[in-house]
Amino acid sequence: MEEYVIENEPYYIPVGSEVEIFTAAYRNHLPINLKGPTGCGKTRFMEYMAYKLKRPLITVACHEDLTATDLVGRFLIKGDSVEWNDGPLTKAVKSGAICYLDEVVEARKDTIVVIHPLTDNRRIIPIDKLGVILKASSEFMLAISYNPGYQSAVKDLKQSTRQRFVSIEFDYPPTEIEKQIVAHESGIDDRMAGSLVEIGHRIRNFKHHGLEEGVSTRLLIYAGKLIHEGIEPKEACRIAMARPITDNPDLQKSIDEIIAAILE
Amino acid sequence: MEEYVIENEPYYIPVGSEVEIFTAAYRNHLPINLKGPTGCGKTRFMEYMAYKLKRPLITVACHEDLTATDLVGRFLIKGDSVEWNDGPLTKAVKSGAICYLDEVVEARKDTIVVIHPLTDNRRIIPIDKLGVILKASSEFMLAISYNPGYQSAVKDLKQSTRQRFVSIEFDYPPTEIEKQIVAHESGIDDRMAGSLVEIGHRIRNFKHHGLEEGVSTRLLIYAGKLIHEGIEPKEACRIAMARPITDNPDLQKSIDEIIAAILE
Amino acid sequence: MEEYVIENEPYYIPVGSEVEIFTAAYRNHLPINLKGPTGCGKTRFMEYMAYKLKRPLITVACHEDLTATDLVGRFLIKGDSVEWNDGPLTKAVKSGAICYLDEVVEARKDTIVVIHPLTDNRRIIPIDKLGVILKASSEFMLAISYNPGYQSAVKDLKQSTRQRFVSIEFDYPPTEIEKQIVAHESGIDDRMAGSLVEIGHRIRNFKHHGLEEGVSTRLLIYAGKLIHEGIEPKEACRIAMARPITDNPDLQKSIDEIIAAILE
Amino acid sequence: MEEYVIENEPYYIPVGSEVEIFTAAYRNHLPINLKGPTGCGKTRFMEYMAYKLKRPLITVACHEDLTATDLVGRFLIKGDSVEWNDGPLTKAVKSGAICYLDEVVEARKDTIVVIHPLTDNRRIIPIDKLGVILKASSEFMLAISYNPGYQSAVKDLKQSTRQRFVSIEFDYPPTEIEKQIVAHESGIDDRMAGSLVEIGHRIRNFKHHGLEEGVSTRLLIYAGKLIHEGIEPKEACRIAMARPITDNPDLQKSIDEIIAAILE
Amino acid sequence: MEEYVIENEPYYIPVGSEVEIFTAAYRNHLPINLKGPTGCGKTRFMEYMAYKLKRPLITVACHEDLTATDLVGRFLIKGDSVEWNDGPLTKAVKSGAICYLDEVVEARKDTIVVIHPLTDNRRIIPIDKLGVILKASSEFMLAISYNPGYQSAVKDLKQSTRQRFVSIEFDYPPTEIEKQIVAHESGIDDRMAGSLVEIGHRIRNFKHHGLEEGVSTRLLIYAGKLIHEGIEPKEACRIAMARPITDNPDLQKSIDEIIAAILE
Amino acid sequence: MEEYVIENEPYYIPVGSEVEIFTAAYRNHLPINLKGPTGCGKTRFMEYMAYKLKRPLITVACHEDLTATDLVGRFLIKGDSVEWNDGPLTKAVKSGAICYLDEVVEARKDTIVVIHPLTDNRRIIPIDKLGVILKASSEFMLAISYNPGYQSAVKDLKQSTRQRFVSIEFDYPPTEIEKQIVAHESGIDDRMAGSLVEIGHRIRNFKHHGLEEGVSTRLLIYAGKLIHEGIEPKEACRIAMARPITDNPDLQKSIDEIIAAILE
Repeated sequence: MEEYVIENEPYYIPVGSEVEIFTAAYRNHLPINLKGPTGCGKTRFMEYMAYKLKRPLITVACHEDLTATDLVGRFLIKGDSVEWNDGPLTKAVKSGAICYLDEVVEARKDTIVVIHPLTDNRRIIPIDKLGVILKASSEFMLAISYNPGYQSAVKDLKQSTRQRFVSIEFDYPPTEIEKQIVAHESGIDDRMAGSLVEIGHRIRNFKHHGLEEGVSTRLLIYAGKLIHEGIEPKEACRIAMARPITDNPDLQKSIDEIIAAILE
Repeated sequence: MEEYVIENEPYYIPVGSEVEIFTAAYRNHLPINLKGPTGCGKTRFMEYMAYKLKRPLITVACHEDLTATDLVGRFLIKGDSVEWNDGPLTKAVKSGAICYLDEVVEARKDTIVVIHPLTDNRRIIPIDKLGVILKASSEFMLAISYNPGYQSAVKDLKQSTRQRFVSIEFDYPPTEIEKQIVAHESGIDDRMAGSLVEIGHRIRNFKHHGLEEGVSTRLLIYAGKLIHEGIEPKEACRIAMARPITDNPDLQKSIDEIIAAILE
Repeated sequence: MEEYVIENEPYYIPVGSEVEIFTAAYRNHLPINLKGPTGCGKTRFMEYMAYKLKRPLITVACHEDLTATDLVGRFLIKGDSVEWNDGPLTKAVKSGAICYLDEVVEARKDTIVVIHPLTDNRRIIPIDKLGVILKASSEFMLAISYNPGYQSAVKDLKQSTRQRFVSIEFDYPPTEIEKQIVAHESGIDDRMAGSLVEIGHRIRNFKHHGLEEGVSTRLLIYAGKLIHEGIEPKEACRIAMARPITDNPDLQKSIDEIIAAILE
Repeated sequence: MEEYVIENEPYYIPVGSEVEIFTAAYRNHLPINLKGPTGCGKTRFMEYMAYKLKRPLITVACHEDLTATDLVGRFLIKGDSVEWNDGPLTKAVKSGAICYLDEVVEARKDTIVVIHPLTDNRRIIPIDKLGVILKASSEFMLAISYNPGYQSAVKDLKQSTRQRFVSIEFDYPPTEIEKQIVAHESGIDDRMAGSLVEIGHRIRNFKHHGLEEGVSTRLLIYAGKLIHEGIEPKEACRIAMARPITDNPDLQKSIDEIIAAILE
Repeated sequence: MEEYVIENEPYYIPVGSEVEIFTAAYRNHLPINLKGPTGCGKTRFMEYMAYKLKRPLITVACHEDLTATDLVGRFLIKGDSVEWNDGPLTKAVKSGAICYLDEVVEARKDTIVVIHPLTDNRRIIPIDKLGVILKASSEFMLAISYNPGYQSAVKDLKQSTRQRFVSIEFDYPPTEIEKQIVAHESGIDDRMAGSLVEIGHRIRNFKHHGLEEGVSTRLLIYAGKLIHEGIEPKEACRIAMARPITDNPDLQKSIDEIIAAILE
Repeated sequence: MEEYVIENEPYYIPVGSEVEIFTAAYRNHLPINLKGPTGCGKTRFMEYMAYKLKRPLITVACHEDLTATDLVGRFLIKGDSVEWNDGPLTKAVKSGAICYLDEVVEARKDTIVVIHPLTDNRRIIPIDKLGVILKASSEFMLAISYNPGYQSAVKDLKQSTRQRFVSIEFDYPPTEIEKQIVAHESGIDDRMAGSLVEIGHRIRNFKHHGLEEGVSTRLLIYAGKLIHEGIEPKEACRIAMARPITDNPDLQKSIDEIIAAILE
């Protein structure tokens, strides 16, 4: 399990009472759901809480083909014999880790059969292929995330699943905090970090003009890294911010103008 | 089977004649269907009846990929050999347990081939992979649940299945009973429990204003637990009630106002 | 095969010439199709005819995932070796049983490859996995059922299949016969049985007002059993008749009024 | 192969030049396509030609799940070892039989990979699983059938497949011939056979009034057999003709009136 | 490989510069795409070029279920052991054959992973199951065909695939050449061959009146063969031309009139 | 790994600052996304950068059936035993190669579970079938490409994936550079290369008149090669440019006129 232990304190600046709420949920065995846009810091927050609570963190990026078997475990061929191999969720249940299912709504529906009994007072996981039922360690915690902006009628958490999770809403960090993060992570100075954050804010306002989603803090850091490496700032912003978030030439042009106006 | 025996009497307060009806159905080998919204106490009622009737309770959370094989059993690799392993339904049939298929309408259609012969006077289960037909123990009972609010044309119980089950309708408990439950389960005092139940009632009225489903008793208990842990009550209600049940910002705002008005 | 032999004469009251027609079809090797609503006595009629003709009866509840392999047979793991295991249809073909495929239209389309050669003058069943072709025993008979009320464009018997079966139409039994059946099966007295049948008739008239299907004789018997067990008659009718057949609150209310009017 | 040899001359009365055309196609290695409604005698004609040409006849009822593997062959478990087992098409190719794919348009598309190379001057069948290519015996012939009334845009023979087959159109036999067939096959007298054929003609005219397909000669024979067995003629016609071909009550009533008018 | 070598010069009459273009593409390692209607001579042209260039020709009829594995190869059971078996494309790559994928657009999309690296300057084929990458022999050539008349939005070659192939368009041969071909292949005299070609031309003009595709040269030859065998010419044309290409009674009638007018 | 090393400097003429940006991204462990039309030089640029950075290049052509297993690896049968075989992505992760996923948006969704953890600061790849997690070599780089012209609502990169990649936009090279490339690659003289590029420009303008995509530099080179081989230039352009890019007769005619006008 040591590969899942976070050894150094992750760089995270709390925005509200999210640390207290997470801690209270953890102490009461309440599963938790982080809602918010891509790249706004949900994963970093999970790493921070895992470090604070001294629990290993096992992260699974969910996708359309993820099945309960992928989470629970399967038999693997080892030389001549066949051995059982715990999946990430089973590992977490046994070792008292925090299991974080990123974008859980993408996973196939058979995953709910393993999630549901872990989220009520039973706290058990049935392992069909072994024919056993495991009781979760008292330190085990289940966390999920999802991005409300993506949900469609087809892909949505059912109420019978949603109502099993305490939900914290995330958004991009406030200006001052985001500036600190960008400067810290990319190595550029505060003034340039401020310009990047300002560009980010302006682009996020375009969400009401056809942009599918705002630019993430992660992309602001990408731009900062390219600038720190010597790429011309306006070019770096186009490459790391305008082009990744949209293919629409008109939106790209508008974003390029914002970049030029702020960095001129 | 002892892992399925419920040893301590579950906390359940009867609302109507549901205990007598369940008992009469059990004595006449009539399968039973619990209809009602998520988190209103159906599972707790099943645990209570299993305790009262002194039968083990085997619960299966159904989902889109659940097959007859998952219910009936499969061959498992044990070291060098392959051994048959009873599925949850077969275990119940053999041991005279109550088998509870939660949200049965989600399961794949091949499950009806094992449900139908168990629900008429034959009371048998065919196990294709072993080539045998099992006669159910006289104590065996089949119960299913489903949530009428979810059904669509695609996902619905066929009449040929529906008409094999006696149906009891559940709803959220009456005010006084729900208050007792919330206080008992979360540890908060009666006054605060009363406020939470009042918030719950007010939110449930929003169902006619676009809310997919009302807030469950389960979520009222979650809020109570966070408050008991020291989280500010209004914050706890937002986290445990408003955010889990909807992503719609307008509905969230309305719910937040209800919370603020009652907890001011 | 003895598990498929019906030892005691089933309780069945003929309504028309269905017994003579079935017997003539059996003697001429004509396959038969029973059409009619759910729970109106088709399965009981099959049991009665199997008893009368002294043939074992093998019933298969068809469903969307039922394949030809399920009907014909498969290899099963028995200890160290693998052994062939006849499916229900092959068992019937070999032993001269009556094979009854209930709601055949639900089965997957590869089942027709085994049905067709059994329904014309060849009367053979190809068993691909063994590489053999079996000739049916002279006593073998194939019967299917389907519910015309369910058929859609997607799920329907093709004419090339339909035109291989003689078809008998079933409906709910006439008043007097249904009253006898309800009283006999549930243990209640004739007067109460008459009230239940009257309620059934009134509900069936609602089929033209949005009810998907009428209440079955089976459900009338369920109500009778609950009443016989001591449940209040109106409550028993709501639980066993109104709730199972519809989730529509308006229809439920109308049905409850019928129940109250007749049982007042 | 002897199980596929037709030993007694099948009862078949030629209608046009279909016997000469089939013979010419056989001698020129031209594959043949029989088009026509269900139950009009296509299969009987195939049996007759197979008898005349002294070739075994291997018939495959195609369906939505029929794959190339089903036609070509597969490995089967025999005790401890695994043995190759020729599919019906491979058997025909090797032994110089006539292979008749009934309703070929229903089969899965991978079947065309084995049909196409058999229908041009190569006359080969690739057996992927054995890694060999077989050259067809000079006596081998491929015949298919399909029912133009069923074809939809989704399920149709592609022109690249259609244009590989000479096509003979079949229809119900002329009055006099059909009368002879019905009398011969069911054992009833000529007068009754004539009445049944007249009913058949009248029903077939309903095809323009919503009937999916006319009543087949096969069903006329069914009715005759029931009458011969002692069932009242009008009842026999309802059971064997009206009910099998339609579920529409209005159409059934009209057909019943025809039956009553002719058999009064 | 000798089974793929074409030993006798195929009968082929060039229509334009297709022989020179094919030869130039072959010498420059340019993959080639033959576009044109069914049965117009594409396959015969491939055989002719393979004979001229002295290369074996491996033809694969593509279909909806054809996978990359079918093309590349698979492990086969041989007695007790499992042996690798090259698929048709791998055989061609190794032996320097021409591989002709007929109606490539029908194949499953995973086939492009093996086609793409063979069509650029890498000329390699990855064999995942063996974990090797093969470099194509210098004589290897890849050719595909497709019928532009069939393409829909769903089934079309992607531009990233199309733009990897030089494309030659085929059509039915000019009158004089088609007459020679029909006479040569069927054995009928020139005058009758001329009549059949004239019928073919007249039918092809119907393509603008609802006919899905014109009559192929192949079908003209079929008609010629039946006539040569003694079938009455008008009957032969109906059987070999009108019936195969359409099920529409009105179109059939119009075509029959053309046949009668020319052959009267 | 030597089969993936590019030994000779690929012929590539930089158009903007793409070489510097790629190098900066490589040094900062930023994954990169190349956007642009088919055949405009993206693959050649990847080969050039791999040569410059002295890294092996592993290219995977993605398609609808490409799964995570195809990228990560699988067990292969080698004689009597079963051996693990690294997939292309795992090979790249271990050896510090550049892995280039061409048209990544086509791949199945389970591939994101292996891409995501490689694109953030974890730089790990989970190998479920072995039960291990690999840390990427410091030299490893992930690059993807996609063609914005193809994207539909169904097939698009999710924002949570897009925002993990720095994006460079590619287009056809400027006139002078494209002329040099065509002459260099096909062997024709500069004047003829200039004519071909002019034709290319004119055809690309048709994109606004119904052409799905412009003619690629690759096709200009194909035309040059055929001309160099002696094919008449106008014929070569029709075969290598007009026919591959469209099946529309009107567009083909317009393109043929452009070809004739420039090459007259």
